[in-house]
Amino acid sequence: MSTRRGPWQLVASREVYRNPWLRLREDTVIRPDGQPGVYGVVEPEDNAAIVALDEQGRVALVLEFVYPLGSTLLQAPSGAIHAGETPLQAAQRELAEETGLRAARWEPLGKVALSGGISTQLSHLFLARQLAPGPPRPEGTETLTLRWLPLPEALARADAGEILDAPSLVGLYRAARYLGQL
Amino acid sequence: MSTRRGPWQLVASREVYRNPWLRLREDTVIRPDGQPGVYGVVEPEDNAAIVALDEQGRVALVLEFVYPLGSTLLQAPSGAIHAGETPLQAAQRELAEETGLRAARWEPLGKVALSGGISTQLSHLFLARQLAPGPPRPEGTETLTLRWLPLPEALARADAGEILDAPSLVGLYRAARYLGQL
Repeated sequence: MSTRRGPWQLVASREVYRNPWLRLREDTVIRPDGQPGVYGVVEPEDNAAIVALDEQGRVALVLEFVYPLGSTLLQAPSGAIHAGETPLQAAQRELAEETGLRAARWEPLGKVALSGGISTQLSHLFLARQLAPGPPRPEGTETLTLRWLPLPEALARADAGEILDAPSLVGLYRAARYLGQL
Repeated sequence: MSTRRGPWQLVASREVYRNPWLRLREDTVIRPDGQPGVYGVVEPEDNAAIVALDEQGRVALVLEFVYPLGSTLLQAPSGAIHAGETPLQAAQRELAEETGLRAARWEPLGKVALSGGISTQLSHLFLARQLAPGPPRPEGTETLTLRWLPLPEALARADAGEILDAPSLVGLYRAARYLGQL
């Protein structure tokens, strides 16, 4: 096989690793400059992240220990889109699992390519409003604490680098722009 | 070995894959709920991304074919931070390689964790001003076209999902906030 892929030529592809959450493949390629090479591509499940706003304009964030980074971070509720789920269904499930919240009003805030140079992973962002509380049901891999912040304070933390997570950052900025608050 | 890592216990770790740009390891863990499991962690080189603004308030973006996503995308100049480089040195090198531009004035715009749930990768963002043109020197893996957009138009494209790349999006929003234009 040899397939064009933009200015690249794909010669062969092999799966290097797979677990339930991500796959890694290595492509044998001819690069745009005509040289042979390899391209390792990470194929995680896509992600859904939620900016949930209450009637007082406060946003629901979670304090969560992030294993790969080894630290506890403040971020928007988010999680993987499982097989058979739409991005919206995953967003609704993740918001309920991580915070207990249900939202009556959902609007898409577009997509983000998280690390396009090495990964296929997209995050689908949503604005959730008209919230009702409920009991959180975290997964066994999660230890979460809910934190409510006024949107302007969340944005100030995003500006200051106190929020690090890419989907959270883009979600907060896009939500504020969509709402006319930026 | 058995090491605490927040609410997780790390039991063992093995390297699954390595190429010059990324490494994948699989950790054997005890999860926060006490159950045994594995955690695959992607360890790419970190990234530097640049919002380069000229005297007319236009931002220098590049149209680039992004291999993992299979499409040509509009994004901020960016690239991997190589061993021995500071984030700023990588940003200066990448801006020159991808656009030919040199900047006399550099300011940090903080960091972004691109996919914290599965990856250690950070992107270091910079605002570059007082630009001087020069000849681009793309790598053999790159095919780039420079596009200048007024910052408000770049932000409108970021809002509309026409810019997908996470470091580009956070860089544009943070730059506009920092400059008092948002």
